[in-house]
Amino acid sequence: MPRLLSSLSLHRHGINMRRSGLTSLFRTSSSAVQLPSSQINHNTNVRTMATQAKPTLTMENLNPNIKVMEYAVRGPLVIRAGEIEKELEKGVKKPFTEVIKANIGDCHAMGQVPITFIREVLALVTYPKLLEDPSFPDDAKMRAKLILAGCRGSSVGSYTDSPGIEIIRKHAAEYIERRDGIPADWQNIVISAGASDAIKNVLKLLICDVNGKKPGVMVPIPQYPLYSASLAEFNMHQIGYFLDESRNWGLDIAELNRSIQEARKVSNPRAIVVINPGNPTGQVLSRENIEEIIKFAHKEGLFIFADEVYQDNVYAEGSKFFSFKKVLMEMGAPFSNMELASFMSCSKGYMGECGLRGGYAEVLNMEPKVKAMYLKAISAMLCPTVLGQACLDTIMYPPQPGEPSYDNFLKEKNGVLDSLKLRAKMVADAFNSMEGFSCNTVQGAMYAFPNMKLPPKAIEEAKKQNKAPDAFYAFELLENTGICIVPGSGFGQQPGTYHFRTTILPQPEKLKEMLNKFAEFHKKFLQKWC
Amino acid sequence: MPRLLSSLSLHRHGINMRRSGLTSLFRTSSSAVQLPSSQINHNTNVRTMATQAKPTLTMENLNPNIKVMEYAVRGPLVIRAGEIEKELEKGVKKPFTEVIKANIGDCHAMGQVPITFIREVLALVTYPKLLEDPSFPDDAKMRAKLILAGCRGSSVGSYTDSPGIEIIRKHAAEYIERRDGIPADWQNIVISAGASDAIKNVLKLLICDVNGKKPGVMVPIPQYPLYSASLAEFNMHQIGYFLDESRNWGLDIAELNRSIQEARKVSNPRAIVVINPGNPTGQVLSRENIEEIIKFAHKEGLFIFADEVYQDNVYAEGSKFFSFKKVLMEMGAPFSNMELASFMSCSKGYMGECGLRGGYAEVLNMEPKVKAMYLKAISAMLCPTVLGQACLDTIMYPPQPGEPSYDNFLKEKNGVLDSLKLRAKMVADAFNSMEGFSCNTVQGAMYAFPNMKLPPKAIEEAKKQNKAPDAFYAFELLENTGICIVPGSGFGQQPGTYHFRTTILPQPEKLKEMLNKFAEFHKKFLQKWC
Repeated sequence: MPRLLSSLSLHRHGINMRRSGLTSLFRTSSSAVQLPSSQINHNTNVRTMATQAKPTLTMENLNPNIKVMEYAVRGPLVIRAGEIEKELEKGVKKPFTEVIKANIGDCHAMGQVPITFIREVLALVTYPKLLEDPSFPDDAKMRAKLILAGCRGSSVGSYTDSPGIEIIRKHAAEYIERRDGIPADWQNIVISAGASDAIKNVLKLLICDVNGKKPGVMVPIPQYPLYSASLAEFNMHQIGYFLDESRNWGLDIAELNRSIQEARKVSNPRAIVVINPGNPTGQVLSRENIEEIIKFAHKEGLFIFADEVYQDNVYAEGSKFFSFKKVLMEMGAPFSNMELASFMSCSKGYMGECGLRGGYAEVLNMEPKVKAMYLKAISAMLCPTVLGQACLDTIMYPPQPGEPSYDNFLKEKNGVLDSLKLRAKMVADAFNSMEGFSCNTVQGAMYAFPNMKLPPKAIEEAKKQNKAPDAFYAFELLENTGICIVPGSGFGQQPGTYHFRTTILPQPEKLKEMLNKFAEFHKKFLQKWC
Repeated sequence: MPRLLSSLSLHRHGINMRRSGLTSLFRTSSSAVQLPSSQINHNTNVRTMATQAKPTLTMENLNPNIKVMEYAVRGPLVIRAGEIEKELEKGVKKPFTEVIKANIGDCHAMGQVPITFIREVLALVTYPKLLEDPSFPDDAKMRAKLILAGCRGSSVGSYTDSPGIEIIRKHAAEYIERRDGIPADWQNIVISAGASDAIKNVLKLLICDVNGKKPGVMVPIPQYPLYSASLAEFNMHQIGYFLDESRNWGLDIAELNRSIQEARKVSNPRAIVVINPGNPTGQVLSRENIEEIIKFAHKEGLFIFADEVYQDNVYAEGSKFFSFKKVLMEMGAPFSNMELASFMSCSKGYMGECGLRGGYAEVLNMEPKVKAMYLKAISAMLCPTVLGQACLDTIMYPPQPGEPSYDNFLKEKNGVLDSLKLRAKMVADAFNSMEGFSCNTVQGAMYAFPNMKLPPKAIEEAKKQNKAPDAFYAFELLENTGICIVPGSGFGQQPGTYHFRTTILPQPEKLKEMLNKFAEFHKKFLQKWC
């Protein structure tokens, strides 16, 4: 049974580790004169003009939740990588010529080419004059006309309903039906500016202290740090449950029970987050494992957050994606009455359209009055980006057999997924061949999360530098090779273990080069600190 | 001196008035069996499977801040308007054939045609193959190439830095410099998915109770309800200050003093929001008025939120837009050291690209460590939509004299603004000619906010129906004419006065028709209730 690493200590850990250096990395044009605070009386409105020169917003009165939140995927390591890129541009000499950003699942940034059909439809809805251009295929034009017919004034420049354009929500429902073989109600689909937006909008509904206890949300450790960041921002209690590295990062029900029992002492557990396929861990959950989780959530009365943005990214032999909705519905009552939100994104899969910010939540069995409040809450933000919605439409309603774009679409889609499959294996194999590293099979998603044994001397040195040992390793790697990864401490890990997350996204040749460089660095690192 | 209408009582008012009917307007597929709550023990983790059928998320344990928040621009009246549209589609007979949505500043929805240059650039960056198409002008291609060069992997599908693409931030700084004649630092520009996103991201920095007092934010009454909604969501104290209707909705410093003194008893005032040009009130503040406000904010140690999204929408003779930044900088120290966030959007002005979700905050004099926290906080949401950013770029760096698109761009831009100027006058004149109505000059923005005297019998009837009198009027108007406006109570108003907001956006012929219908309805309404 693993030891408990509370969210609080994880946070503390994160802060100590990462805040050093962060604040100095942004310049501003502030020229405020700093006066001793004794000259300022904050509790009176009778003050002379000369006294107000200190900023009114300071680290002392800043939102305390913002102070503690951390988002490692864009943390100090990534900021340093950006600085190094600028230094290289200026001609500073380094032992490498470019930074390889393996820190973030940013497909196009790593050379993946956009799917033609998606971009054709987007160009058509943006600039409808192109509907007369014979070089655009008819199915793309048909999709564009459908989307424009759903836009007020036939323009993507008008606001849509806050949960999105009706026809796109309907296409999403049809997509889900095809995927699961289970009916889907388009009114349960809420389109969003990427999955992050959708997740935060559902999560914030749960902010409610009961009997002086904070609402608690179970998140996997390691986890995608959007969850820890959002829970910190919302002042909710993070209940970490450890994924079982020895079972390829599966969920162990005994561990779920342990973590919720610990958490009930200090919080009111309300929800469980499951990321499947896993980020950063790359596992694909078996149907049996999902059933166990659903039974657990049912027993504990938890709202299920199924983060399923990598549903198209399944590579390993024998692995198959099952949606939580499908399993829950097929289990029948009482499970099929449970509250579930499933999240999808345009940013991952084969399309990788991160920058367009499209996604949705499918929300099941939400109490009607609560759902009305949810829809009211998102209405003040008006609507998700219409071009992000249009992008989502092309994924929910892709070219069909017999349509002119079908063959090319399939070729491009399979090209991306087949290549990712090869790279998933290439990455895990490479790390497994390095001394002291062990890496689970990357069954799905876009990441490997290898375990690394670090030499005690390196750990000592890291502590001297006030860095987590894996962050120390990652900084050394970056400065020596230009490879940017994210240390395991940014996602959480069993105390005393060290990991890192790398994407599998560099194009094959670049990836090979990166893995060679990595192996070379690792050998030298071990020599240096052995 | 106006009487105090506290934000609390405004909220209460709003809730009583608006919540009726809201929850019944959304259907869900929920099939959860409702069990008496006595059968459920929320404080134990030992429960049998059969007992969990009640939803875990209910109105009782929903986020209480979400429960109280209201957003009238998309409130029950607008929901009813949507229902009426569906009824009309189905052939239900009504005294009108279409709904005219004068409730929301949604330009393209009301027939405004997109600016060609903007859409050309967007099509080019979305589908770069079009860079070879000779029918696209060279300046649009040059802009597209600049934007793509700022995108990782030259794709708008990759993530950007969280505050946006560097070259676009630089173009925004240059735009601000041209506007104000004052230097702007591109690192102070934080691009966002529309101004709403930017406003909420700065506002949330101020969430911090001091000595048990909530942070307070001064907002104009009437105000754009994004502010009341966000303050409710963040559990901050709304400090309403009344705009002076008798001075064309200007800001009266005595009223600012009154409202902050009242508010200090129960909250810790930290910021002041000024909307200029005004929404819903249409005023354009004089330079002198802005100076007074800045001096007041300085005296009180307030962070200034300058909502300047209508900066291009100035129509009245003698009115001119001055940015808060320009005035504050030209006032010199100590004012030029004050903290200010100015917000801009792609959704308004002459472009009206609401659906693309582009905007920015220019943040001045923010304490460097605080600014680092601000940038950290937005990083978990990854980045604003890249196509929204690209749209912003076309506005920050429009066609220049001598470039091929210049003449047409200017013609289209001035066409929109000249027409809005005519419509601004047409709307105010029309309402001033109706019995019991008086409407200030629409100096800027996109709205008129007429004052209406309602017959006592109509007010009585409204109370019987548990509606605010102006909401009663607006519902009657909608059901009888199809015209959808927003009652003044959605924005706040002096107690005992009644107003409504209408946009000036219907195209001229449609607007004339709408105003005629409105006048006819109003006459009948007065007859019925006199």
